[in-house]
Formats: sequence, C-alpha cells, structure tokens
Amino acid sequence: MNNTNHAKVALVTGASGFIGSHLVQQLIAEGWRVNVLLRENSALPDFIKEYSEIVQHIYTGATEDLIRIIAESKPTVVYHLASLFLSEHQSKDINELVNSNILLGCQILEAMKVNKVRLFVNTGTSWQHYDNKDYSPVNLYASTKQAFEDILQFYVESGFINAITLQLCDTYGLHDPRRKLIRLLKEVATTMQPLGMSAGEQWIDLVHVDDVVQAYIKSAERLIGDFVSQQEVYAVSSGKPVQIRELVKVIENEIHHALPINWGERPYRDREVMKPWKSNLLPGWQAQISLEEGMYTIFSKKNNVDEIS
Amino acid sequence: MNNTNHAKVALVTGASGFIGSHLVQQLIAEGWRVNVLLRENSALPDFIKEYSEIVQHIYTGATEDLIRIIAESKPTVVYHLASLFLSEHQSKDINELVNSNILLGCQILEAMKVNKVRLFVNTGTSWQHYDNKDYSPVNLYASTKQAFEDILQFYVESGFINAITLQLCDTYGLHDPRRKLIRLLKEVATTMQPLGMSAGEQWIDLVHVDDVVQAYIKSAERLIGDFVSQQEVYAVSSGKPVQIRELVKVIENEIHHALPINWGERPYRDREVMKPWKSNLLPGWQAQISLEEGMYTIFSKKNNVDEIS
Repeated sequence: MNNTNHAKVALVTGASGFIGSHLVQQLIAEGWRVNVLLRENSALPDFIKEYSEIVQHIYTGATEDLIRIIAESKPTVVYHLASLFLSEHQSKDINELVNSNILLGCQILEAMKVNKVRLFVNTGTSWQHYDNKDYSPVNLYASTKQAFEDILQFYVESGFINAITLQLCDTYGLHDPRRKLIRLLKEVATTMQPLGMSAGEQWIDLVHVDDVVQAYIKSAERLIGDFVSQQEVYAVSSGKPVQIRELVKVIENEIHHALPINWGERPYRDREVMKPWKSNLLPGWQAQISLEEGMYTIFSKKNNVDEIS
Repeated sequence: MNNTNHAKVALVTGASGFIGSHLVQQLIAEGWRVNVLLRENSALPDFIKEYSEIVQHIYTGATEDLIRIIAESKPTVVYHLASLFLSEHQSKDINELVNSNILLGCQILEAMKVNKVRLFVNTGTSWQHYDNKDYSPVNLYASTKQAFEDILQFYVESGFINAITLQLCDTYGLHDPRRKLIRLLKEVATTMQPLGMSAGEQWIDLVHVDDVVQAYIKSAERLIGDFVSQQEVYAVSSGKPVQIRELVKVIENEIHHALPINWGERPYRDREVMKPWKSNLLPGWQAQISLEEGMYTIFSKKNNVDEIS
C-alpha cells in the first residue's frame, strides 16, 4: 500500500509561530502530508525549515489565491493557528488585528466552501473569558477571536464546515520565540538580575506545547471521525491553574534557589486575570505534562534562553 | 442663548443610505449639528443634499484620519449606520464585508477612545437571530454584525464607550433606494405585471423609517442621560410580524384590488425566516405607525416607484 496516497493532508496557518511549528513537526512524525500558508515576510523556524516534506504556499491577501491554494493542496483538515497577538493594542494596530484575526479566517472558510473542504480546527483564547464569563474579552485581541468564532458559526450552520475551536490558555515549551513570562523568569534564573513584578496574585494556566499539539491532532481525528456537527469549543487547559507566586515557587523548587523577584513593584494591568477560567476539555484529551515536569525541562537543564521560553 | 453653542453634535455614518439619510433629516429638524462620514464614491441622497448645515467628512480607510475627524467634529453621539448589506454573498465580497461591517466600526471606536468621545449608537440586524435563537446568523452579513458587537463589547467593558445596539427588523418608507420586497410589490401594483414568489409563509416584521429614526434618537437620549453602563441591545421591531401572504392582503385591502402574484413559483431561500424573532424593545420606544397606515402611505397615493420603496 502506498502510504503517500492514503496519507492525511494538513494545511496549517501560523506554522511560523510557536505552536504552529510544533504542530507541523508532529504531523510529519505521524505521517501527514503538510502544507503551510505563510505570509511573504515570514518563514518557518530553524528547527523545521529543513523538512523537505513541507509544501509552502504564500498568502497574498487575495481570496482567489486561497481558493487556488486549497484546490491544489486538497487538505483533509485545515489547522488555523495564524493570528496577531497583542496583549495591549495601539491605534495603529487596528487594521492588522482585523486583517490577521478575522479577514484571513473568513477568506479561508470561503475558499474551503468553494472547494468542498469541510474540516477546520480553529484557535481561540482563554482571554475571551475574563472573570470566568461566557464572553468577556481581556483585550481587543480576544474580542477579534470571538468575532471570528461568530463568522465561523455562519459557515458551520450553513452546512459548509465542521469545526472545533480550541481556546488556548498559556503555553510554553522549547523553541518559543515569544517574550512571555516563562522566558523572563528563565532570564532571571540565568542572570540573577532582579525583576520587578506585580503582586503576583493573578492566575496562569500553563499547558506544555506537546500537549497543545495533541489537542489539535485529536480535534482533527474527531472531525475526521464525523463526531462533530455544530461548532464545538473546548478549553486547552491544564485543569490546574496557579497564581504567579505559586508558579515561581514551583520553579524555585526545581532550581533549588530563590529568584530575585520584587513582588508588588509593578501595578496589575487593566483586566488582569484574577479569577481562573474553567471550561470543557476536548473529549479524550487532557494535559499529560505536569507543571513540575514542564518547569524541570525548562529550568533544570542546559537549555539556554534562546532555545526555550 | 446661542443655540449653536449648546446644540448636540452628531456624527452619522451611513448617511447616504436609506435610514441614515432620514436620521440626518430628523436630527437637523430637532436642532442637532450634524456631521456625516462618507466614502469618496458615495453622496447624500437628493432630499437632504441641499442642507447647508451638514458637515461632510471623507472616510479614507485610515484610522488616523478618523481620529482627526472625531477630534474636529467633537460629536456628542456617534450614530453608526454604515454597512454593506448582502442577503447572499459571493467569494469576491469577503474583503468588503469585513472592511465595511467590522474594520470601519473598530476604527471609529478607537478614534472615539483616543478623543474621549463615549456615546455610540450601533446598528445590528434581526437576522442575527435565525429561528428566534440568541445567536444564529441568517447570512454572512448577519455574522459580521455579531462579530462587530463582540468588538464593541471590548470597548464598553474597558470603560471607553457607552453603547446601544439597535437590531433592525425590516424597514420601509419614502426615499428608499433598495430593491426590497415592498418596492417590488409597488411595481406589481403599478404595472400589474405578474410576480412569481415563494409560498409566502416566511415572516416579515416591518417598521416605518420614521419610527426607526425615533429609536436612534431615543437611544442617543438614553446615552446622554447616562442610563447606559453595559452594551444594551434592543430590537427595532413592530411587535407585530406578519407572514408575506398576510402583508399582501393588507396591501390589497388598501388598493381595493388583488395583486397578480404567483405563490409558490419560487423556492424559499436557504435559511429563510420561518419563525419570527422576539426580543426587548428600547425603553420608551415603540412603533407608532401601523402596518395599515404605512402601507397606505406607500400604496394609496400618487407617490411613484422611484420615490418610495
């Protein structure tokens, strides 16, 4: 049996990003044929760019080009991870936020509809649920994610698309280019330069990227198995959120010394998450890597700051 | 007392359209100073274009220009009626739907935030509520309206904007350029050329434009009176939806003869509204013009098809 002819085919957006690049790596390991959609000015990160199996397509901004790309690649599943993340926006960012987080997704759904490609895994954020509400956006970014889910709902209810939306909590792991908290703490642990932080009572729900990737692949399997009629929305949550102070204690236990953090030196941000969000997990998925194990991989080994978060 | 200095100031988007143009006329009648935001290729309709009081601003697509326009016009209230309506879209329409119905609104909210202008009346549609559901979009247009409400929610919850969203049912009245049902029926009544229609059991909830305009102005008064903290969403509904066949009977009663309609000649559209939507009305507002009165103004007088719907 020729494996290539029977392989599942993925089209991945956001493959240049942290989670997208790990997803591509795992899909290839599991025998998928992988297409990626990249902007002209973006590139795959070093750890996957040598994979000759990856077919690269360039996003020009035009719907008709996406129609052609999907006609050519005939994906079994579209994994939509591309987005512009901004924890706080400025006026100049409005167009790019709408284009990246709403328009691109609409164009992809339309291109799927035209090509009768039905299976779509979408990416949302726990930040759509400030104060543990059904919908209350932490920031403009989160509101654009909710907005796109509403548009996806039209394509689902019209019978063109079967979709699962994964709302991600915080993520971490190897090859993380983002300057987020774990990376800052790693820098503190390495340099022992003091870091001014808030009072540290806000919540964080950290999921290791390997677990996140499994949530995407299990979502695809659920769609392929035809278990999904309405748009299904799941949290990619560890189920064990911690306050920042507790996270730092876990890290300090792993490295056997205290970190020089000045608690309370900075104010909380507007709409800081002071109450953790709880929601349903994807059936058959739960995080396998505990916070302690995950922090061990980041903080206790020779990995340098450039490689890890 | 110099009235000009104390007048309320409106910025109206969509003033070239059916409801927007009537709103502008009424705002001027009630002593508001009126600014309108127009696209370069659009113009005010004839019945208001001679009003020298109207200050016209051109929308270039850039957020910074909107920031300047709102800084210059200092509106008491922004009435946001601009949108691209398409009952069914094609792939080529995706960009314009997102730009007109989501991006423009975001840019306006951002420009209001920068200028500390707080009061915003937004426009939605009953078509966000197919099958009388909390959210189920009849078409892609309706999903873009829901998407924009989600983004508005961010600006409201962040404390920058006080907002009322009016979700409009069907509208009609004088000076209606749209080729919608009432206009078609007027053509049938005038020409007596037979018209093929569906079986006619879908629902329509018709509100006269003069009543719709009052809903906008009362919304503004409610915002000015500081009665609004969260985003409030109201239906602009007659409270008396009718099936299309019943509507035609009302018209036939007004004109004292039957209309040559071939019922059942055409199929229903996908997601035709077969169950009327019920929701809350704006406090202090209800439709004053009955269906019979409204149809009388359209069908029983000398008004020709170009003037009326």
